[in-house]
Amino acid sequence: MPNYTNLHFLRFLLFEVHPVKELFSYPRFAHLDEEQAWMLIESAKKFADQEMAPYYKEMDETPVRYDGKGNVLTHACLKRIIPIAAEQGWIGSTADFEHGGMQLPEMINGTAHHIFQAANNGVEGYIGLSSGAAGLITSFGSAAQIKKYVPPIFAGKWQGTMALTEPQAGSSLTDITTSAKHIEGDQYAIRGQKIFISGGQHEACENFIHLTLARIEGAPAGTKGISLFIIPKFRITESGSFEYNDVYCAGDFQKMGQKGYATTHLVFGDHNNCIGYLVGEPHKGLSYMFQMMNGARISVGLSAASVTMAAYQASLQYCKERPQGRLITEKNPLQPPTLIINHPDVQRMLFTQKAIAEGSLSLGMECNRLYDLVHAGEGDEKHNNWLLLEILTPIVKTYSAEQGSRAAALAIQTLGGYGFTTDFPVQQHYRDLKIMSLYEGTTGIQALDLLGRKVTMENGKALQILSSAIQSTIQEGITIPATTNCANQLANSLVEIQKVLAKLLPLATEGKIDLLLADATVFLEMVSYTVIGWQWLKMGIIAANQLNNAQQEKRSFYEGKLHTMEFYFTYEMPHIAACAKTLLTMSGLTSVKDYELFA
Amino acid sequence: MPNYTNLHFLRFLLFEVHPVKELFSYPRFAHLDEEQAWMLIESAKKFADQEMAPYYKEMDETPVRYDGKGNVLTHACLKRIIPIAAEQGWIGSTADFEHGGMQLPEMINGTAHHIFQAANNGVEGYIGLSSGAAGLITSFGSAAQIKKYVPPIFAGKWQGTMALTEPQAGSSLTDITTSAKHIEGDQYAIRGQKIFISGGQHEACENFIHLTLARIEGAPAGTKGISLFIIPKFRITESGSFEYNDVYCAGDFQKMGQKGYATTHLVFGDHNNCIGYLVGEPHKGLSYMFQMMNGARISVGLSAASVTMAAYQASLQYCKERPQGRLITEKNPLQPPTLIINHPDVQRMLFTQKAIAEGSLSLGMECNRLYDLVHAGEGDEKHNNWLLLEILTPIVKTYSAEQGSRAAALAIQTLGGYGFTTDFPVQQHYRDLKIMSLYEGTTGIQALDLLGRKVTMENGKALQILSSAIQSTIQEGITIPATTNCANQLANSLVEIQKVLAKLLPLATEGKIDLLLADATVFLEMVSYTVIGWQWLKMGIIAANQLNNAQQEKRSFYEGKLHTMEFYFTYEMPHIAACAKTLLTMSGLTSVKDYELFA
Repeated sequence: MPNYTNLHFLRFLLFEVHPVKELFSYPRFAHLDEEQAWMLIESAKKFADQEMAPYYKEMDETPVRYDGKGNVLTHACLKRIIPIAAEQGWIGSTADFEHGGMQLPEMINGTAHHIFQAANNGVEGYIGLSSGAAGLITSFGSAAQIKKYVPPIFAGKWQGTMALTEPQAGSSLTDITTSAKHIEGDQYAIRGQKIFISGGQHEACENFIHLTLARIEGAPAGTKGISLFIIPKFRITESGSFEYNDVYCAGDFQKMGQKGYATTHLVFGDHNNCIGYLVGEPHKGLSYMFQMMNGARISVGLSAASVTMAAYQASLQYCKERPQGRLITEKNPLQPPTLIINHPDVQRMLFTQKAIAEGSLSLGMECNRLYDLVHAGEGDEKHNNWLLLEILTPIVKTYSAEQGSRAAALAIQTLGGYGFTTDFPVQQHYRDLKIMSLYEGTTGIQALDLLGRKVTMENGKALQILSSAIQSTIQEGITIPATTNCANQLANSLVEIQKVLAKLLPLATEGKIDLLLADATVFLEMVSYTVIGWQWLKMGIIAANQLNNAQQEKRSFYEGKLHTMEFYFTYEMPHIAACAKTLLTMSGLTSVKDYELFA
Repeated sequence: MPNYTNLHFLRFLLFEVHPVKELFSYPRFAHLDEEQAWMLIESAKKFADQEMAPYYKEMDETPVRYDGKGNVLTHACLKRIIPIAAEQGWIGSTADFEHGGMQLPEMINGTAHHIFQAANNGVEGYIGLSSGAAGLITSFGSAAQIKKYVPPIFAGKWQGTMALTEPQAGSSLTDITTSAKHIEGDQYAIRGQKIFISGGQHEACENFIHLTLARIEGAPAGTKGISLFIIPKFRITESGSFEYNDVYCAGDFQKMGQKGYATTHLVFGDHNNCIGYLVGEPHKGLSYMFQMMNGARISVGLSAASVTMAAYQASLQYCKERPQGRLITEKNPLQPPTLIINHPDVQRMLFTQKAIAEGSLSLGMECNRLYDLVHAGEGDEKHNNWLLLEILTPIVKTYSAEQGSRAAALAIQTLGGYGFTTDFPVQQHYRDLKIMSLYEGTTGIQALDLLGRKVTMENGKALQILSSAIQSTIQEGITIPATTNCANQLANSLVEIQKVLAKLLPLATEGKIDLLLADATVFLEMVSYTVIGWQWLKMGIIAANQLNNAQQEKRSFYEGKLHTMEFYFTYEMPHIAACAKTLLTMSGLTSVKDYELFA
């Protein structure tokens, strides 16, 4: 079995870079210690080794299939994996004890899910979605709803989903038309269609709990008239038996990647017999859903980082085993070939992958730590951590997705022609990764979120907190010889961002909001390079400190961190200036009215 | 049927930017005029519309299959397409009249092949390979060899291939071990294995002529001991009948893209009954093969540009038809949604694709023009054009492949979740494109070729000719108001390249050739951005001039060229400075000895 992640690196993140033990001082997590936490990670790894990784290729080669009669047929392994995941507590592991969860920090849950995603991102989704859906019910549902739906989801018997997208609306939730007509109590008659419903309906679970956005009759137009409903595939009668709830699966989308993961088309109420149960108050559905959505965005970022890590590990392993060619300084063809890892261009491709995979994993861990601090903390600290998490969410989601795809392309490239063949996993990683820039809000949507909302929220306070956090890492980095240069370079990039904002933000007061946001994606790219630079500086500082007293056998690991940090600052960070140059031009070139200009 | 290319743009390239009619003054091409040339292009388009485009998806969904008994099963359409291509003269269309060709300029042949590749890059390869293989025989084979092998290849009855790669050697042709033992005359007994043989053996042709590199017993080690052989699957007896030549197809590689294109594993002489026929002189095989290889590299560049164009056209069409969301300035949810082409971020993605697709196609056309001038011209002019073509070859190959993949990712992105589904062609374009950075020398190999060979050849003369050509476009561009800024920016990037070389090249004399070449890929990237900027400036100059007297209906087309030129200079060119910064660091970070640093 190929490597797909690196436990040393996960320990480094959890115990040194983003010390999880700081969480254990909060009452919510006081039941844990480092040793227990690591045992959980090791058991997750064993589970992934035994039950997930072995099916990664097979699930790709025997894609999910729709039988034309409402059923979605998935790989047989799912029927075994989901119950084990439930038994080990990984469905809803972060939920409160009172709801049947393990009350784990997201840092630990996220690390386990990283392992699952790296091993087989086609199975992890089923588990993650159930956790998210149940989390939405425990947060906003009634006691009765929690009691009815959450335990079977945590037991892996029922699958939770999130149902937002409609064929005509796509990313524009304003235009959702699925309708809800009041019957009585929390019951509404639902009619409508949803597409791209991951884990929609399949044969590995006996019931499906769709957390669905719909519009109550007479509700205000736009996003302010959207409500959240629990729509089960089967209603539960008084006696506990199943009653079909008119939720028909009309198809499964065939895709270029994630072929083992069901992506369904659902039709609600085609026979006027679909009941949805209102969650919380009417018209507040979108804000509720954004709890799950924000979590899902971080989770997509982590998923992308995880697949990128798996591709990197496969690439690294190949490069350490494959002899080919000679160093440029060796002219004698009678000398044996060298391992390809010795070629500088191959090292460039490996370090690029490593910088992206580990940098985005570290940022994912940072986000999960903030998530935990928000949930465990109080007062100003809680609020400030929330603001920081808000501004980092579009970044972790997008950087990991976009740069992850680039890294996976390099993984293919290191294998040469073999990388393009299905004999090796890297081409599957490349295909699977492409969806990450589309899931849960495309890159363009994330960019609007960052520049149009997060940068300006609370008078720029989120951005200010982020800048302070980065500054404080810079101040530490400047004092350490091995990180001084990178710290200075990072400080410069903060200045560049300020320069760009000084020029862009006045556009808002001039009423040119369209021009302000036209290059939001370039701005997101620029800030992302900076934020990942921050993560690398953090890792570099820890590594430099550890090298002062590391045993010989661990020195290489820390030296590798410093080396990759330098690589990132030398090869990746210079693109910040390029983004800045484009942004400062404020060209308005992307507001063309005459479509013939595209011809 | 979706659009896959733009005939207006092809006319623009052929008749305005790179005027093909200049070629008609050479005796070799005196038999042609513009009208004839365009009729050929239109007939190619019709052929592609009718016979190629309709099977693009189908060939992907019913991949080439190996039957376990030596046979490779291809899509049925090939048996119809290859003979039509032959009948229309597209196999060997550039060959001399005396060899049965149409003596077309590569500019015209390349334009037709662009159309084929954009319509269905899985069928074009079979045709292109046959042309290349036959070209190698007409250039270096004996009269008897030409007479025997070329006509059936041009007739589409036999398939030509190029067989270089071996499992243990990969990109390192030095390490080829396929052996040839002299029998008599031009006959040698061959033993060995070749992999990744495109169009290897399949059921759509009756015989296969493998142009194969092998080592004659006792030959010098390394690339100076490699000879070129014609190895047919079936030998032709005196009476003209077929005799099996012990060339066994042992498998077909399954790939993530180009699934309709056979990629075979061939075993020569496993039963000691394989005869190869020496082409030209012994030990000169590699230099002969490089005629085909250089052509193939340009052709891969054009192929990548063509698939990129097809993805762009599909993306553009979708964006013009899909309503979704509202402009940022429209807050009223009761207003109908706008077409997504009106969103600035979508326009950014479209212009990026357009800049890459059209920029690389223009460079491909430039290369084909030079190819024609080399073949039709004489003396110094011929030599200088050859030098310019030599330095542009790694650029057209790599830029089109690497940036084409990026463009296709954006094509997927514009379609949102739909782009990831097999309902739309963009995901197939994305998958198909990835091979282009591997075919005929990976990106890393091209980069070494550029910086290690082409930049320094003839004391830097090739680079000097390229610089002069770019300078002369800059001088023209500076005088035209619409292109002045871009011309100045391009001039700056030439200065940046000189700065980098001034720092890098002395490393060669200091004996630090490994450090000089360590970042060759970054250098290639930097020069590529510049060369594509040159192409855009060329196109911009023509467009600006034509706008002075264009009819109203054509104005938008030319305005679109100027607009895309500005877009390219605003969004893409700034990355040149980033590459320069990395290169000037000369960090040596990619010459790590301790593999643990990658852990």
